[in-house]
Amino acid sequence: MSKLAVLASGSGSNFEAMVHYFRQQATADIVLLLSDQPQAQCLNRAERLGVPAAAQRVRDFPDKDSYERWIRDTLLDSAVDMVVLAGYMRLCGPTLLQAFDHRILNIHPALLPSFPGKHAVEQALDYGVQVSGVTIHVVDEGMDTGPILYQEPVPVFAGDTPETLQKRIASVEHRMYPRVVEAYFQGEVTLKARRAIWKEEPTWDCGF
Amino acid sequence: MSKLAVLASGSGSNFEAMVHYFRQQATADIVLLLSDQPQAQCLNRAERLGVPAAAQRVRDFPDKDSYERWIRDTLLDSAVDMVVLAGYMRLCGPTLLQAFDHRILNIHPALLPSFPGKHAVEQALDYGVQVSGVTIHVVDEGMDTGPILYQEPVPVFAGDTPETLQKRIASVEHRMYPRVVEAYFQGEVTLKARRAIWKEEPTWDCGF
Repeated sequence: MSKLAVLASGSGSNFEAMVHYFRQQATADIVLLLSDQPQAQCLNRAERLGVPAAAQRVRDFPDKDSYERWIRDTLLDSAVDMVVLAGYMRLCGPTLLQAFDHRILNIHPALLPSFPGKHAVEQALDYGVQVSGVTIHVVDEGMDTGPILYQEPVPVFAGDTPETLQKRIASVEHRMYPRVVEAYFQGEVTLKARRAIWKEEPTWDCGF
Repeated sequence: MSKLAVLASGSGSNFEAMVHYFRQQATADIVLLLSDQPQAQCLNRAERLGVPAAAQRVRDFPDKDSYERWIRDTLLDSAVDMVVLAGYMRLCGPTLLQAFDHRILNIHPALLPSFPGKHAVEQALDYGVQVSGVTIHVVDEGMDTGPILYQEPVPVFAGDTPETLQKRIASVEHRMYPRVVEAYFQGEVTLKARRAIWKEEPTWDCGF
């Protein structure tokens, strides 16, 4: 059974969706939640769900790489196979990327390469797009630039606020992120250069 | 009945789809095709379809603005209400934008702001997106930067080539561009800053 760790900075709703999914599927075990925000709600969720968790502030380390070595060593101590970023608001540096080469996944609330970075939902509304969505990708050294494993469109409606659009996007995230993580460690989706090859092409849920 | 002109540089397949649509609907009359490429296939289509057409090379004018004044004056001579760009490979300058303020529409074979410019389909494949699409927008002075009236997602499959993806996108273009042009001149879709307000939210065709 694959051992997964989740890195999160915020509420951890994707973390919780993933815990429920893999407890039902029994194809992976989420052995650890790590956070860079000791007050983040994701830590409360981890406690409630019975998932071991730890948090450290970057500023309590001498430099960013020391913080990242703590992340890496904690992951290696738990024999983690794959790392899942779920609202983790930091770039991964070489220490983490080398230790888990092509084994760190991220989810982003927009159709990359549109609207990378922290304010994707607001920026999509400000731009006036009518199609936004969800991107699940392998993490590289850039900001939301890694090769894409899965994308699904989400409509934007005229009356949308950041909150209503975020909620619509989150429902796709919670449904798809665990499935794509599972497909990736099971080899159902592989990468050829930057293009994902699915053994069976996934279809979108267009039932909005 | 609205009088439309189409500007095109290439094959003119969107032009032809629009002619057929409006001859059936009888809500607008396509009174003119203008091109910057005297050898372009769109001119043959115009002749076959019985649509008046003219073409001039930019390089046969003293400067770009003289060329654009020819476009503008030809449009005004025909009492054109709205201008539809359909594979017109030039930016619109101030002469044309001022004469037809918010009355020039364009279609782009990607989900803007991703992949603006001339090589959208190839760039989408190279990036590895799984959701591309079609954007119909009001033209401003930028390259594919104007406010969006309509977007529709189009899936990218693992086996896609530029040709197969282009074909899938073109089928959405031919279906939707005439409808969105019509909705715009009938006031069914309006702009509030950069956001389109549809009287009735359009739905995507997800039957791929």
